[in-house]
Amino acid sequence: MKEIKVQTSTHPYKIMIGEKLRFNLSEVLSKKYASVLIITDSHVSKLYLKDVQNSLANEKVFTAVIPAGEQSKSIEQFYELHTKAIENGLNRNSLIIALGGGVVGDLAGFVAATYMRGIDYIQVPTTILAHDSSVGGKVAINHALGKNMIGNFYPPRAVIYDVETVHTLSKAEIRSGYAELVKEALISDVAFFEDIMAASLDEMNNERLISHLQQGIEVKARIVEEDEKESGVRKFLNFGHTLGHAIEAELGYGKMTHGEAIAIGMLFALGLSQKYYGVNLPLEELTSWMKANAYPSSLPQLNPNDLLAKMASDKKVLNDRIPMVLLKEIGKPETVEFTKEELLEELSSFLGKMVKA
Amino acid sequence: MKEIKVQTSTHPYKIMIGEKLRFNLSEVLSKKYASVLIITDSHVSKLYLKDVQNSLANEKVFTAVIPAGEQSKSIEQFYELHTKAIENGLNRNSLIIALGGGVVGDLAGFVAATYMRGIDYIQVPTTILAHDSSVGGKVAINHALGKNMIGNFYPPRAVIYDVETVHTLSKAEIRSGYAELVKEALISDVAFFEDIMAASLDEMNNERLISHLQQGIEVKARIVEEDEKESGVRKFLNFGHTLGHAIEAELGYGKMTHGEAIAIGMLFALGLSQKYYGVNLPLEELTSWMKANAYPSSLPQLNPNDLLAKMASDKKVLNDRIPMVLLKEIGKPETVEFTKEELLEELSSFLGKMVKA
Repeated sequence: MKEIKVQTSTHPYKIMIGEKLRFNLSEVLSKKYASVLIITDSHVSKLYLKDVQNSLANEKVFTAVIPAGEQSKSIEQFYELHTKAIENGLNRNSLIIALGGGVVGDLAGFVAATYMRGIDYIQVPTTILAHDSSVGGKVAINHALGKNMIGNFYPPRAVIYDVETVHTLSKAEIRSGYAELVKEALISDVAFFEDIMAASLDEMNNERLISHLQQGIEVKARIVEEDEKESGVRKFLNFGHTLGHAIEAELGYGKMTHGEAIAIGMLFALGLSQKYYGVNLPLEELTSWMKANAYPSSLPQLNPNDLLAKMASDKKVLNDRIPMVLLKEIGKPETVEFTKEELLEELSSFLGKMVKA
Repeated sequence: MKEIKVQTSTHPYKIMIGEKLRFNLSEVLSKKYASVLIITDSHVSKLYLKDVQNSLANEKVFTAVIPAGEQSKSIEQFYELHTKAIENGLNRNSLIIALGGGVVGDLAGFVAATYMRGIDYIQVPTTILAHDSSVGGKVAINHALGKNMIGNFYPPRAVIYDVETVHTLSKAEIRSGYAELVKEALISDVAFFEDIMAASLDEMNNERLISHLQQGIEVKARIVEEDEKESGVRKFLNFGHTLGHAIEAELGYGKMTHGEAIAIGMLFALGLSQKYYGVNLPLEELTSWMKANAYPSSLPQLNPNDLLAKMASDKKVLNDRIPMVLLKEIGKPETVEFTKEELLEELSSFLGKMVKA
């Protein structure tokens, strides 16, 4: 088992990465809780809820199962979980466990952050993608007018990552999660990047997966430690996301996985970086790796102006300029602001190639 | 003008108490904001919204007016205000101003705490009661199953208290606010308590009001500084509230003002304290002062067991025992836990006297 410590403005917490951890949850509880509410989704509940429940045999455990999928990050589901918590008599000494992917983690974390003004919660991610969202304390629900618009910065008390649970993921979900690992590699360390480029997602073993997750989480953890509330370096984690989020929104959520859209966004950001700094970056290497691992290599016709409008409405935008995270070299990210006009040509040309491809 | 500083876990802020402050809001903004959303209610908007808007002539100002009254602390109104914030293009560099009483402060503060995971907000209380709720960073909305169940600890950037605005309050609202000042006096300082007992609420001038508010807020500020998240001494602010909240809930919200219910709760807590510690406390003096100032001196028939059930379901209750804040003497509060059975006789006798009175 690998262990990573994170310091936050309110408390330190541990991230544990290993095999079979879901069978030993009670061992990692740092104190005796009055009661525990496990929040999971309709998909994960069938696979791992019993294991987690059994591992908490000495606790007073309640469960809440939400429908799987992004649409559960709604104000209605949020309120519904509060109802459940109140009806089950949860108090300030109770614990919430978020068992699932990013949707469960974001939603259950936000319920914990707001129930009686905040109770403890633990993230138990079951997807590769959630290695990213489960660390750092960003919790939220969606508003009809924007993703993750309603939320808090509220760090968990622990992240328990049982890598066995990711073996039930679809290939698209594995690609999605690995895109965030690639991002963490690109903004931090060439050796980590090469290590991923040498791997085939179809032939992943636990040892290698644990190593990649550990390195990725380490990158994320050090960044959020330095900048918990996203006023500085945390924005580097947005590499590939400015365009990626816009593509997700334009296609309609669910048409492409988050990470697959981010992967396309990274190709654009790498190309832009090469041009902006006049440097060489492993754009071709990443393109080949994505192809070899069956990432989508084309997009339907999208209007660049619509995408740019979406890019300019991101939460991180503070004026009319679009902040793009670029790379001077691998491990040297930098935020550069562009006007929509400045990005239009580059984006149009990029989209043109993606349609043809 | 009086100024009180409060240190929080994230930032320090100032509380300013004085006359005509609503005309000079722009002077207290500590930085240039991208935009400002003033949230107020249908009652206060008619009286003071124009003044506040005019004082922010150089800012990009939007306004949102919610229906006056406790029912606005709902999940629907919360979501509606987020819609308004998004539609007006508020970003992380925007500011929310809560102009009004406790309902506006709690709701607008929680919107600020959760909009894009938290933006700055300023409290501009317009009631005496709100001297209490505007300081300390407790923000929340109600759940159908309990008051203030969904919220955050999220301190404001400033509290601007223009005492002129409280002159438009009804007498019941003045009594309600003064009950919290009496509470702050009882848990802190006999001189402050005697100062209030010497005052008639019908003949209050700004100077005396400012002095009382300053002393009350000072008590509150020092306590929340020591215990922001309510794990220790902050519970002393609950003096009179355990029974008071239960009376409010049993009568149905709005039947009696918050402070008037708390005042009755304080009489019970003082009587219980005398018995528990075998001491003499100014129970008669407070009873006379309440009578002289037209506080409700009787209650309809209430079932003590129903009240006790309510008292045992408070957010602060962590086990089956009811934590009562008692006084060993004025300025010496202490939390003592009782079972329902232990409180039944004392409460029945107290209620009996209140019905006869």
